[in-house]
Amino acid sequence: MNDEHTTVGALRRMMADFVAEREWEPFHDAKNLAASIAIEAAELMEHFQWLRSDQLAKVQGDPKALGEIRDELADITAYVLSFANAMDIDLSSALAEKMAKNAKKYPVERFRGRFD
Amino acid sequence: MNDEHTTVGALRRMMADFVAEREWEPFHDAKNLAASIAIEAAELMEHFQWLRSDQLAKVQGDPKALGEIRDELADITAYVLSFANAMDIDLSSALAEKMAKNAKKYPVERFRGRFD
Amino acid sequence: MNDEHTTVGALRRMMADFVAEREWEPFHDAKNLAASIAIEAAELMEHFQWLRSDQLAKVQGDPKALGEIRDELADITAYVLSFANAMDIDLSSALAEKMAKNAKKYPVERFRGRFD
Amino acid sequence: MNDEHTTVGALRRMMADFVAEREWEPFHDAKNLAASIAIEAAELMEHFQWLRSDQLAKVQGDPKALGEIRDELADITAYVLSFANAMDIDLSSALAEKMAKNAKKYPVERFRGRFD
Repeated sequence: MNDEHTTVGALRRMMADFVAEREWEPFHDAKNLAASIAIEAAELMEHFQWLRSDQLAKVQGDPKALGEIRDELADITAYVLSFANAMDIDLSSALAEKMAKNAKKYPVERFRGRFD
Repeated sequence: MNDEHTTVGALRRMMADFVAEREWEPFHDAKNLAASIAIEAAELMEHFQWLRSDQLAKVQGDPKALGEIRDELADITAYVLSFANAMDIDLSSALAEKMAKNAKKYPVERFRGRFD
Repeated sequence: MNDEHTTVGALRRMMADFVAEREWEPFHDAKNLAASIAIEAAELMEHFQWLRSDQLAKVQGDPKALGEIRDELADITAYVLSFANAMDIDLSSALAEKMAKNAKKYPVERFRGRFD
Repeated sequence: MNDEHTTVGALRRMMADFVAEREWEPFHDAKNLAASIAIEAAELMEHFQWLRSDQLAKVQGDPKALGEIRDELADITAYVLSFANAMDIDLSSALAEKMAKNAKKYPVERFRGRFD
């Protein structure tokens, strides 16, 4: 599996199958899954907790840290996909529509290299 | 765009283009993006903050809430994809490998309907 | 030490001394401390991650879980106090003023037993 | 009210009274309050979301941002105190005991100016 050839739908089915086999749907309500995304996001943050902006390259050279970061990002992704499954949200169209709104909110000419 | 026909790679390029056009890469370091995922996850949680487990169906019947939830999930997804771009992580293989580990950690027979 | 006889200022000094002895002030900037509060809050959430509202009493009867929860709450408190130290914010007056605003925003007659 | 002369117990009673007057105890279970701490922590993080470590002084010179940060810290504190009320945890002794553990875990000689 790789990002070039894998659809979002295929990843969603992988998650749905994993959850269904274990009959975990009753736990996977929207409230619990939203909290789970936040919990995993915090574990990702932990890898950068005390690093200054100019120290972040350190992580790139640390294979153990990189492996853990990759796993944390996978955990977040798992819950994002499960949330989409639980609420029946099409992620690709949700993202495309949100980014179209953001493109209007942040026109290129006005926001090049800045946020405000 | 929809999940059945959209690859993760296509979504990643959509995000990369958006960020590159605005020259936002300097802001999009791993530390800031991890915090951004957590910030958006908290905004998603906010929709369920005071609801008991048995009240969650209320949200499903509320089109305004559903639209906001869809937008929040899109925001989280945007930062997950940007994080994958910033750290050059293949999300599909990261997820497949993490779920293979989870399948070993939570064998179906032992964990059907339970977590512990 | 107990809440009846301990001032917020005494707790703030306990934290300031701990940090100063270790010369950790350079790490304890506002951005890192805000993230640290969020990280510890997520660890607290984890104890309730998959529990339905009607299962929360289980935790109250579990001394091991209670001990861990108490430690997580202490961790959050430690970073809240350190943040107040780093930004020179008086917590007691900040809270009193915010709750005065909240009292106006949520008048008792209108919000008894409800949030909206 | 100020930190020098205000006990943690006094702040806890302020919160308990606010909640009791509005009969909000049924909403204020441990799971919801833990999520609420995380939600408010994320709002605090938002003020530093895109700032590099060397740009944090900007916030100190911005009275509007400082006022908002003070309010966010008050919100976090409010939920920490409410959590302590809901679970009947003495914050001062919980903190003192956790910091005693931390003092053993991070002896001064070994951890001066470093975390690992």
